[in-house]
Amino acid sequence: MTIRYGVIGTGALGGFYGGMLARAGLEVHFLFRSDFEFVRIHGLRVDSVNGNFHLPEVNAYHTTQQMPVCDVILVCMKTTGNHLLPDLIKPLLHPESVVVLLQNGLGLEEELSAQLPGVQIAGGLAFICSNKVGPGHINHLDYGKLVLGSHNVSNPEILKQVVNDFQSAGIHADLSSDLRFARWQKLVWNIPFNGMTVVLNTTTDSLMANENTRELSRELMLEVIHGANACGVPLKESLAQQMIEMTIKMKPYAPSMKLDYDFGRPMEIEYIYSKPIETARDAGFEMNKVSMLEKQLRFIQGNC
Amino acid sequence: MTIRYGVIGTGALGGFYGGMLARAGLEVHFLFRSDFEFVRIHGLRVDSVNGNFHLPEVNAYHTTQQMPVCDVILVCMKTTGNHLLPDLIKPLLHPESVVVLLQNGLGLEEELSAQLPGVQIAGGLAFICSNKVGPGHINHLDYGKLVLGSHNVSNPEILKQVVNDFQSAGIHADLSSDLRFARWQKLVWNIPFNGMTVVLNTTTDSLMANENTRELSRELMLEVIHGANACGVPLKESLAQQMIEMTIKMKPYAPSMKLDYDFGRPMEIEYIYSKPIETARDAGFEMNKVSMLEKQLRFIQGNC
Repeated sequence: MTIRYGVIGTGALGGFYGGMLARAGLEVHFLFRSDFEFVRIHGLRVDSVNGNFHLPEVNAYHTTQQMPVCDVILVCMKTTGNHLLPDLIKPLLHPESVVVLLQNGLGLEEELSAQLPGVQIAGGLAFICSNKVGPGHINHLDYGKLVLGSHNVSNPEILKQVVNDFQSAGIHADLSSDLRFARWQKLVWNIPFNGMTVVLNTTTDSLMANENTRELSRELMLEVIHGANACGVPLKESLAQQMIEMTIKMKPYAPSMKLDYDFGRPMEIEYIYSKPIETARDAGFEMNKVSMLEKQLRFIQGNC
Repeated sequence: MTIRYGVIGTGALGGFYGGMLARAGLEVHFLFRSDFEFVRIHGLRVDSVNGNFHLPEVNAYHTTQQMPVCDVILVCMKTTGNHLLPDLIKPLLHPESVVVLLQNGLGLEEELSAQLPGVQIAGGLAFICSNKVGPGHINHLDYGKLVLGSHNVSNPEILKQVVNDFQSAGIHADLSSDLRFARWQKLVWNIPFNGMTVVLNTTTDSLMANENTRELSRELMLEVIHGANACGVPLKESLAQQMIEMTIKMKPYAPSMKLDYDFGRPMEIEYIYSKPIETARDAGFEMNKVSMLEKQLRFIQGNC
């Protein structure tokens, strides 16, 4: 089976992953917003630690109405635009299409599933440092691993095929048997570092160099782990120490929310903070410090 | 009995309260640091909402060694200099002297008492908006109430006399029968607003206008109230709502810690945050959100 891919949101993520698939010869159709005219003329450029490449001609579109129906739709937009998703996705659907939400946070698949009943939905987590540095120009700095998992996909073979396609395109991809586990696990890192780098206007290395914020990061991580546990997701407490040690070894890093804040874009507070807080609360666990960070971020967001 | 006053730290607080006592004809001896030469020549100027005044000649000193012993020593320095207090105070002491710590926070009297065994110590809380705006120049913007309380004063008459002196000098002064209660009560306001205006780089009015920070302020207040309760201090939960409503009605305000931060001075984290956190913890109550705010402030302090 040959999969026809659609990429919604061709930025740091969609440009890299979609670009890698297209370079490997797979059929990929890209939705662009502001970069559409530029890419139609100049193509898509990816500067990657694994080797730069340029795709002079890509299947570029300005609206999803102009795109063909796709077998797998990779959603790579920021979650701050998710209210637009149902209308964006509908023109791409055929009866067997699978939508893959390559986004951070919690509750994404559940929300889209309620908006598009009967549509097969999966989720994915990208462990990558990449940025869009100009129109149709992606800079891939480090990492790149992709973890995919089913939300309600009835045919498990198609996700295996997607993982194979990514692997043949040179991307380290895995299939998780538990998407909720994978989403909560990534939140253990995302919740402390996205919010703290914004509130304290700093980068991960400075947070790790100061004993107060190193300890606070650990406390926030443990709160997320206990929140996950309350929801029946068996994350271990030892994950906090592992992630602290990993972050100490990382190069100075500004997480995506810090970049969003620095560039005046809306922050992904809803799905990275509010939804996990609500989900844990519904399960009887109050994430007090995470909730404090959420309120600080909402104050900052409201004053931008 | 006529009390001879000493004022250690003639800034926003010491300049106002000491100046008011001196204007009323009481004997007041002032310790100045950088303003000493200026005040010796030009005197002390207080611009007050209740009427401006100028004291052309004040008893000004550059060291406490040069000062006479005093009956009542009003400590009006920032707590960030409290490690200097024993050496500063010793030259002013006679066997009946009372030291009054007009400072914010917790554990101040206990610490000084351990450093100066046998010395009579009291505490005071100033409810005032005032700033030092130039050498020997104080601007008193609003309020001014003083609450005094004994820590280990053996002769209760002397504090009554101090209150009388303040009242005859035009200052609303009260004697509290429970200094710990008074200190915790003031912390209910100081803990949320000092720290949050620094961490979120804002003023009280903006914190109150945003529903997230209004709610977070209330949560921090309730945590302090519960911390006090754990220490046997019977503050009521309803105090939180009262203080929120009072703060909503206040003019836009930058608390002293925000001014310290803005002017690059060290912040009073130790006595306003760390000591209350430790005290509540020793009593079995963990102030989680207050502790998070403390760590954020210590990070900011460390990066100044």
